[in-house]
Amino acid sequence: MPVLVMKFGGTSVANLDRIRRAAKRVGVEVAKGYDVIVIVSAMSGKTNELVGWVNETSPMFDAREYDAVVSSGENVTAGLMALTLQEMDVPARSWQGWQVPLLTTSAHSQARIEDIPPENITQKFDEGMKVAVVAGFQGLSPEGRITTLGRGGSDTTAVAFAAAFGAERCDIYTDVDGVYTTDPRICEKARKLDRIAFEEMLELASLGAKVLQTRSVELAMRYKVKLRVLSSFEEQSDEAGTLVCDEEDIMESNVVAGVAYSRDEAKMTVVSVADRPGIASIIFTALSEEGVNVDMIVQNISDEGRTDMTFSCPTDQVARAEKALLAIKGKGEINYAELVADEDVCKVSVVGIGMRSQSGVAAKMFKVLSDEGINIKVITTSEIKISVLVDRKYMELAVQALHDAFELDKAA
Amino acid sequence: MPVLVMKFGGTSVANLDRIRRAAKRVGVEVAKGYDVIVIVSAMSGKTNELVGWVNETSPMFDAREYDAVVSSGENVTAGLMALTLQEMDVPARSWQGWQVPLLTTSAHSQARIEDIPPENITQKFDEGMKVAVVAGFQGLSPEGRITTLGRGGSDTTAVAFAAAFGAERCDIYTDVDGVYTTDPRICEKARKLDRIAFEEMLELASLGAKVLQTRSVELAMRYKVKLRVLSSFEEQSDEAGTLVCDEEDIMESNVVAGVAYSRDEAKMTVVSVADRPGIASIIFTALSEEGVNVDMIVQNISDEGRTDMTFSCPTDQVARAEKALLAIKGKGEINYAELVADEDVCKVSVVGIGMRSQSGVAAKMFKVLSDEGINIKVITTSEIKISVLVDRKYMELAVQALHDAFELDKAA
Repeated sequence: MPVLVMKFGGTSVANLDRIRRAAKRVGVEVAKGYDVIVIVSAMSGKTNELVGWVNETSPMFDAREYDAVVSSGENVTAGLMALTLQEMDVPARSWQGWQVPLLTTSAHSQARIEDIPPENITQKFDEGMKVAVVAGFQGLSPEGRITTLGRGGSDTTAVAFAAAFGAERCDIYTDVDGVYTTDPRICEKARKLDRIAFEEMLELASLGAKVLQTRSVELAMRYKVKLRVLSSFEEQSDEAGTLVCDEEDIMESNVVAGVAYSRDEAKMTVVSVADRPGIASIIFTALSEEGVNVDMIVQNISDEGRTDMTFSCPTDQVARAEKALLAIKGKGEINYAELVADEDVCKVSVVGIGMRSQSGVAAKMFKVLSDEGINIKVITTSEIKISVLVDRKYMELAVQALHDAFELDKAA
Repeated sequence: MPVLVMKFGGTSVANLDRIRRAAKRVGVEVAKGYDVIVIVSAMSGKTNELVGWVNETSPMFDAREYDAVVSSGENVTAGLMALTLQEMDVPARSWQGWQVPLLTTSAHSQARIEDIPPENITQKFDEGMKVAVVAGFQGLSPEGRITTLGRGGSDTTAVAFAAAFGAERCDIYTDVDGVYTTDPRICEKARKLDRIAFEEMLELASLGAKVLQTRSVELAMRYKVKLRVLSSFEEQSDEAGTLVCDEEDIMESNVVAGVAYSRDEAKMTVVSVADRPGIASIIFTALSEEGVNVDMIVQNISDEGRTDMTFSCPTDQVARAEKALLAIKGKGEINYAELVADEDVCKVSVVGIGMRSQSGVAAKMFKVLSDEGINIKVITTSEIKISVLVDRKYMELAVQALHDAFELDKAA
């Protein structure tokens, strides 16, 4: 039997009615002849509740215990989904991460999937089971403890299963009906894309367009998993949603595919550090070891042997970043005049594989922002993306202006 | 290091504040030099919520999925308790049933504990861990699936751990401060007992004084586990609560230890069945196969070869009992004139190991009830217990009168 992976996010399984609705979608695919692997998230709100309890109990929590607590939401949904399918006479059973087993590294709360031996589930398919309902987001460490894959890890679980079982497709059911040129909540001209290249999706995901977890897209790209994003709240055809695929599978596309933003960015500047080899390494090793996700990095021009090092990171990691930088100063590894944190910035980016072959995108972007009177604080670029940090109050304005300027409301 | 088992029920871990309070109690025992195994229930209300979802999803649910869903509440508490202890600098980690592993039978939703290999936890104690927090109520089947032990199963988990680890004592923290001579809610003279014999506790537990799950007391008796019931809401000394122990450990005791009652009893009479060998066997086999928990049984004197068979069972099993009895009548296995169900009765019992050596307890009990004008409908006796069925409206009166007559408000 061909295998299909279907993943339902938190809002798609938020209550028993929605679980029933999702189960009906699964039933449709079973009727087409698929063996289906269903990956479920926790009912919406549940994971936040659990995370809140952990944070309140222990602000610097032991990530192993965090994982043990936070993974429980998915177990509930998996069992309820299996029961719902059984009620519809679809042979199904639930699997928790350790039962599959979904083997991961020991990096608790952000573990990476190492292997998914398919034997246990395949055997049940051979015995007539039609649906394996798997609790997403969780796995088993080499030490036999429960791990989680980081927020949104259920997408990654789904793609990993699709790869391990050679699935025909991996359908991600969510509360949006596809991938848009930008967030429709802040730009009403946003348009749904029928197809988007893995590379573009990767940039959009990592930039804060949170339709899919970045790692899930990376994994899909590496294993050539056809990934489809679609709504669990609409009747679906086989052509619904947005297909995330190889760029060769996309005939025509705009130079810029989309405009992304990320609201909770902070800009930090280490003022007046010695401008000598090794300083950047010391700073960013220390930040990495403290678990700070550094994004953009800019080093100012040196002045009398000293320079300013500026970087951005999520707002909620500013305290950790300060702790890491104070520690290395305390140990005498580096010296600097002061740390300046600007927690009132956001990141806006334009993304498109067309940029590779077309110049002038950056110039156009800067002009658009300048025309709106928006000051750019930091710039970074990649082959298919240009990002800027600007004051947070300009976020909506910047996104709308760029969406208009690159005519993203019109299909290629 | 000596091992202590401490179990906290749902109300004792109902929120983060109460978990902290419980953790402080654990810290006190660790400071005394114990290696502590903490067994936790789900936060109060959580298991009912999960059970409700399962029932709504699938009224005739697959018990394997029921267990997978319903066990998740304890996992949350176990992780939060471990984190709370770590915050207090007490080295602790959580264990789910399958991680210990707590091995059970495959009888999902009412599994029995088969074995608790202590190696994994002992190794951690040897490495310096002071507290193993174990999710109660759950285990692992031979098929590698999650099982649960039935409601109240966390008490049984606690006693089983105490037995497996040779614990010095098993402390059950709950929302009452011990075992009383009767329910203080219906008899204000009820007195807390310092000690009670296993046998007495068993009778009281199975009679509806639901301080401890019956199976946990049976297990404690078999493995000589010292069991203490005490409140998690009061400051505790080593002498707090009630110790459930061997009768040899009780120096003096009243003839009657306590008065128990059970409100939801029904009396059923099979009127005019043939009085010949085998009839009782047919009736009670049929009831057992339908899952009816028959308690008291009385057979009237035979009259012209026919007799009445009376028994009691929980009120909510009357429908099942009728179904079973109609079925065997339909199949011609027995014949009877009619079935009479009296759902308005209750059971009142006096319990005490002192009865073994002292006669006249039954006579005194019947006189007390008679003096109050209470008619006795059914009587059963065991070595250490006398139970009567009476009209439900007399329940409080009967309990109070017996408590007075046997002077249970005064210590021996």
